Amino acid sequence: MPRGRDVSNSCCLPLHLNEDNARFGLLAALILLYLLFGAVVFSVLEHPSELQAHKRWDEQLANFTEQNSINLKSLQVLLRQYEEAFVVGIRVDKLRPRWDFSGAFYFVGTVISTIGFGMTTPVTVAGKIFLIFYGLLGCAGTILFFNLFLERIITMLAYIMRWCHERQLRRSGVGGEEARSEDDSLEGWKPSVYYVMLILGIAALLVACCASALYSAMEDWDYFESFYFCFVAFSTIGFGDVVSSQRESYKAQEAYRLGNCLFILMGVCCIYSLFNVISIIIKQTLNWILGKLDCNRPQ
Amino acid sequence: MPRGRDVSNSCCLPLHLNEDNARFGLLAALILLYLLFGAVVFSVLEHPSELQAHKRWDEQLANFTEQNSINLKSLQVLLRQYEEAFVVGIRVDKLRPRWDFSGAFYFVGTVISTIGFGMTTPVTVAGKIFLIFYGLLGCAGTILFFNLFLERIITMLAYIMRWCHERQLRRSGVGGEEARSEDDSLEGWKPSVYYVMLILGIAALLVACCASALYSAMEDWDYFESFYFCFVAFSTIGFGDVVSSQRESYKAQEAYRLGNCLFILMGVCCIYSLFNVISIIIKQTLNWILGKLDCNRPQ
Ligand SMILES: [K+]
Ligand SMILES: [K+]
Repeated sequence: MPRGRDVSNSCCLPLHLNEDNARFGLLAALILLYLLFGAVVFSVLEHPSELQAHKRWDEQLANFTEQNSINLKSLQVLLRQYEEAFVVGIRVDKLRPRWDFSGAFYFVGTVISTIGFGMTTPVTVAGKIFLIFYGLLGCAGTILFFNLFLERIITMLAYIMRWCHERQLRRSGVGGEEARSEDDSLEGWKPSVYYVMLILGIAALLVACCASALYSAMEDWDYFESFYFCFVAFSTIGFGDVVSSQRESYKAQEAYRLGNCLFILMGVCCIYSLFNVISIIIKQTLNWILGKLDCNRPQ
Repeated sequence: MPRGRDVSNSCCLPLHLNEDNARFGLLAALILLYLLFGAVVFSVLEHPSELQAHKRWDEQLANFTEQNSINLKSLQVLLRQYEEAFVVGIRVDKLRPRWDFSGAFYFVGTVISTIGFGMTTPVTVAGKIFLIFYGLLGCAGTILFFNLFLERIITMLAYIMRWCHERQLRRSGVGGEEARSEDDSLEGWKPSVYYVMLILGIAALLVACCASALYSAMEDWDYFESFYFCFVAFSTIGFGDVVSSQRESYKAQEAYRLGNCLFILMGVCCIYSLFNVISIIIKQTLNWILGKLDCNRPQ
């Protein structure tokens, strides 16, 4: 019965597909729940301060128009013009130039890392077209860079683990050479995902703490706000509500700019790798949940 | 000679490490060059319009103070207050509320996708602390989602390719069942990276074109600006210079908001996968370059 065999054979595949699909669907459902949960919490936390900010601004505007006996309509025209100016980086307290070489370099850094603070954005059509092609290749290159970075970290950890193991063997009197000849490659020395997560978490925290110390010294931010900036930048979320190195001048400006770039680079590398490692753990958790749900299936 | 054997044995590893390190170093150097190149191009393209914008704003400000015979200092106080108000989402033409449930939902979506437009950002300390923990888990979950999406796409392509192959075999008279029993799993049907890139590129372009049509109909943007927004959003750069669905009200608002979410979700999935596939091609290119550079090495 070729027809029957065909069906039973192909049965394997849909089941296998279904397992992957179940994982995908479960994750999508969990993410949706996570979004709803987050929306509720943020709404509760932030809504009062939003109302307060609106009230404050309305008062400030009313005060100003009253004190200067100015027409609200003509002031609104100016404020609309200021909105346009704001987007291209104009402030009352002058910021650093957006599109001199160092500003453009900072900008392209935020493009290919996909941080995209938005403190600088192209406004010309040519700039926008170039951005699309530039970003397409640049972001892909940076993803590869982060992936290779994670590979390097894991290899380095494997190397260190083997080295420690060999030293221990040598100390306890067992011949180190015999051990080496068996485990010639690093294959057997892949560190566990929890160990890598721990190391990366510590590294990210260290970088963020050091960077926060730098930022709270150089900018008008307190330590916690600097730490918040570090998370937003390193995770490549990049809101742009606070952005480092934007004032017109700093003490030791060149050194600060270099330090800023290096900290962001190191931070993004660590957090990107950390996200990937956490995502592996989430995947294992999903598999565990699916296994629990599915433990009494016939096959 | 145990000592000698040890050295020659361990020689394998550093060489292997060196190849990986060379690739990593080559990529880092190329990215640095790419950044320098991009900085120069953007600086040339955008610097004139920056100077123009500054000149325009200075004129507008001078006109206003002159016509209303107002003190520049007191106007600057107001503008500083408006800067603060601007960051928390206050505009002359009222925007949608930031922290009602739907606004907060849009916000958490930009967090876990790492788009981070920054049209909404937490301002309370509690909100910022919650963001750090929320983002850490959420971003990792989303990365897993994107990775599983790419896996699903590749599996689907493999499935389609096998199906086409079988249909061809059946048409040409060769028994389909024999072919199936050999290639029972999808293992042999992994589509080439170029094929996946093509499919993803077409999918991303289609999503971006459809989304642009929607945005140019609903927002005050022309088609190109909508397309630029799509790229910035889908690539998760998320400058926030233009953000969809921000006005206080739209025609068919609920449908538009849903469409906006779905387009961004589909777009980010496609572009994230596209970036990953392009990064594999870049890696192959790097290996090819290293091979060329290294073809006459002794080992
Ligand atoms: K971003
Ligand atoms: K952003």
